[in-house]
Amino acid sequence: MDTADLGLPVEVPSTALFTDQYELTMVQAALRAGTADRRSVFEVFTRRLPEGRRYGVVGGTGRVLDAVENFRFDDAVLGFLREMRIVDGPTLRWLADYRFSGDIWGYPEGEVYFPGSPVLRVEGSFAECVLLETVILSILNHDSAIAAAASRMSVAAGGRRLIEMGARRTHELSAVAAARAAYVGGFDSTSDLAAGFRYGIPTVGTSAHAFTLLHDSERDAFRAQVDSLGRGTTLLVDTYDVAEAVRTAVAVAGPELGAVRIDSGDLLLVAHRVRQQLDELGAYDTKIVVTSDLDEYAIASLAAAPVDAYGVGTQLVTGSGHPTCSMVYKLVARAGSADVAAPLRPVAKKSLGAKSSLGGRKWAARRLDEYGVAEAEVVSAGEVPADLVDRQLLAELVKGGEIVAREPLEAARERHAAARAGLPLSAIQLSRGEPVIPTECR
Amino acid sequence: MDTADLGLPVEVPSTALFTDQYELTMVQAALRAGTADRRSVFEVFTRRLPEGRRYGVVGGTGRVLDAVENFRFDDAVLGFLREMRIVDGPTLRWLADYRFSGDIWGYPEGEVYFPGSPVLRVEGSFAECVLLETVILSILNHDSAIAAAASRMSVAAGGRRLIEMGARRTHELSAVAAARAAYVGGFDSTSDLAAGFRYGIPTVGTSAHAFTLLHDSERDAFRAQVDSLGRGTTLLVDTYDVAEAVRTAVAVAGPELGAVRIDSGDLLLVAHRVRQQLDELGAYDTKIVVTSDLDEYAIASLAAAPVDAYGVGTQLVTGSGHPTCSMVYKLVARAGSADVAAPLRPVAKKSLGAKSSLGGRKWAARRLDEYGVAEAEVVSAGEVPADLVDRQLLAELVKGGEIVAREPLEAARERHAAARAGLPLSAIQLSRGEPVIPTECR
Repeated sequence: MDTADLGLPVEVPSTALFTDQYELTMVQAALRAGTADRRSVFEVFTRRLPEGRRYGVVGGTGRVLDAVENFRFDDAVLGFLREMRIVDGPTLRWLADYRFSGDIWGYPEGEVYFPGSPVLRVEGSFAECVLLETVILSILNHDSAIAAAASRMSVAAGGRRLIEMGARRTHELSAVAAARAAYVGGFDSTSDLAAGFRYGIPTVGTSAHAFTLLHDSERDAFRAQVDSLGRGTTLLVDTYDVAEAVRTAVAVAGPELGAVRIDSGDLLLVAHRVRQQLDELGAYDTKIVVTSDLDEYAIASLAAAPVDAYGVGTQLVTGSGHPTCSMVYKLVARAGSADVAAPLRPVAKKSLGAKSSLGGRKWAARRLDEYGVAEAEVVSAGEVPADLVDRQLLAELVKGGEIVAREPLEAARERHAAARAGLPLSAIQLSRGEPVIPTECR
Repeated sequence: MDTADLGLPVEVPSTALFTDQYELTMVQAALRAGTADRRSVFEVFTRRLPEGRRYGVVGGTGRVLDAVENFRFDDAVLGFLREMRIVDGPTLRWLADYRFSGDIWGYPEGEVYFPGSPVLRVEGSFAECVLLETVILSILNHDSAIAAAASRMSVAAGGRRLIEMGARRTHELSAVAAARAAYVGGFDSTSDLAAGFRYGIPTVGTSAHAFTLLHDSERDAFRAQVDSLGRGTTLLVDTYDVAEAVRTAVAVAGPELGAVRIDSGDLLLVAHRVRQQLDELGAYDTKIVVTSDLDEYAIASLAAAPVDAYGVGTQLVTGSGHPTCSMVYKLVARAGSADVAAPLRPVAKKSLGAKSSLGGRKWAARRLDEYGVAEAEVVSAGEVPADLVDRQLLAELVKGGEIVAREPLEAARERHAAARAGLPLSAIQLSRGEPVIPTECR
């Protein structure tokens, strides 16, 4: 393994060390005890949504498939595990041959979820499944947090354009995944070139204060930018005096100026003034882009302002107050022996506290009311009732170790818009509340 | 570029696309305008600490050096930029030859910082410096947030061991950087194998509930684990009944059992009961590890409990409420022409709102009181007074494009402990407050 995720990979490197040590030592102990081959079912779910949120958004499923496919222990990794004595010789040999050969079902990316929704189900031998815990959770917990924040922001923005600009506020590779999840959640573009390279997300850019400050005058800076990038460019107008900058911008670029960006001050007030000024200067088609610590509430508060696009950074990539979901990966059923025909038995932790969970291999379906609006998330390990057969949420993603559900990112984005539109209207209230539909565990 | 950061790289790939698009288009416009070669100074600083925090911790400096060294535009990247028409031909040719050739000074990793501290200063031509904005901020904003949370947790833990276990709660590569930053901030080990592989951080592991549930009884599970991993292992005792599990654990492993882990319930109460039970069973040396949504406050509240080690996940990797710092990368001085001898002029944004900043190329020093305790962070673009010459904080990191300040991670960890110890005692209060020393901007 000579590197990391995929960040930008054309070739995808190994993901096998994105793993907590105990997963390997559990494999070692289970191999020795003869229990490693017991057929097992693990499920990913969360016991709660982040406080006040009405729905969750599944993000990262496509990245999970990449990670599973590239979960391989190559010589460098095996050498490390040997040298550090993390596992013994038989386990190293088992790891060297590791390929996930089981099945994965899950909520397709972009789908909404609720407490208890089995968003992913991983089935195979105990050893092959337990190894995937950390990397699967890393991806789903991160990407779903960003997708959920993005979804709320896209609701708040109405039809206006949303630009992801948060790369500088998070780890450089989180940023790439965040741009991807934001796109699923409804954003239109990103400033992050790596995200454009890796995932084909449309990239955009404006200009920084540094560019204006580099030049001997704002006029020089604007002229340099327009000369090189054309009149359709976006000029940053708040380095010195906004009104003067807008005047200069239109003087330099003409009324064909693409857009101006405002990055400070009272955005509501300034946007109104700038729009009026642009119109007076005949620049009717020049757009206004606002940035500056926006979140879904700030975006909503600008609904009445003449804003054409929002650039969102910090609050997007940090999940707008909830940078991670609380998804867990739990063994819910396993066989009593290594016999492939041995029946699965439900299992669940039963200790003190709130961490107990529902055992058994589960299906989930979204029940609709008479108007076709979602009214409940039904989760059960029992039989699927006839009226819910067609409303089931889990799709086959990996079959016998082969990925069977790759899709373009656009499909996840469209799925999310459709899934959100199928929820009760109160789903899109930004105010705090309960999950918009209840989860019925049967 | 066939990948990302380093995650785990032995060979480090290109970091050139961890860049916002506007940096490249600004380079293009500046190249055409003849201003790209103006000597420029950019500084990284924050206007404020996260609310209530007493000090910040510089994390990621070592990763910044790697990123700068590997900031190269290879054919795949150039092809992408050409195909997407992000920049023009002359700019592509300039990028193909790009090597940072300037100087970087900064607070060494692990040092504490305050509002206005110039934690990094990048100097060279405008074009070569402006390109580094996003990747530098990504790394410093992320890693410093984690290092600061880790530092507070290590204060709370006193001398007890701290294990980083947050990989599953954040992006898989953020997790690697987080384990690294946590180590700088005072953590002792990590569960993340990638962090062990990449940075040599000690790795540890226990066991999951799934392992107990896989087996036909808790006793079978404990026996399997002890048989394979030895009596020094850590057994997880809260899958069913804790008291029974502790009895079984000592019955299986004997009083030489390494440790037990408690992951749920009222940790204070349960730890006391488990300690008493272990002692009654003669397992005086068996340690108690607690996990379960710990943060610095929960750790502090367990100070009186018989706990030997804390495993911290979510709250560590999300910066304990502050997953990012608000560091910015600002042009503070630049020459008036491309002449290398042209003098630098201070520059600063001067618009409405709170985003203005102090121009000029700055030094910083920490002034001590008569007892040798820090009393002020002094930041200025003027002359360094004689009494502060030896107290300066910026160190040379890159000279003429060459990295000159690589150091083992251990050095940053030790530096942090020393820097924190040099602050007034109130620095280590967990309660909310102002920065523990004022920043004097001269």
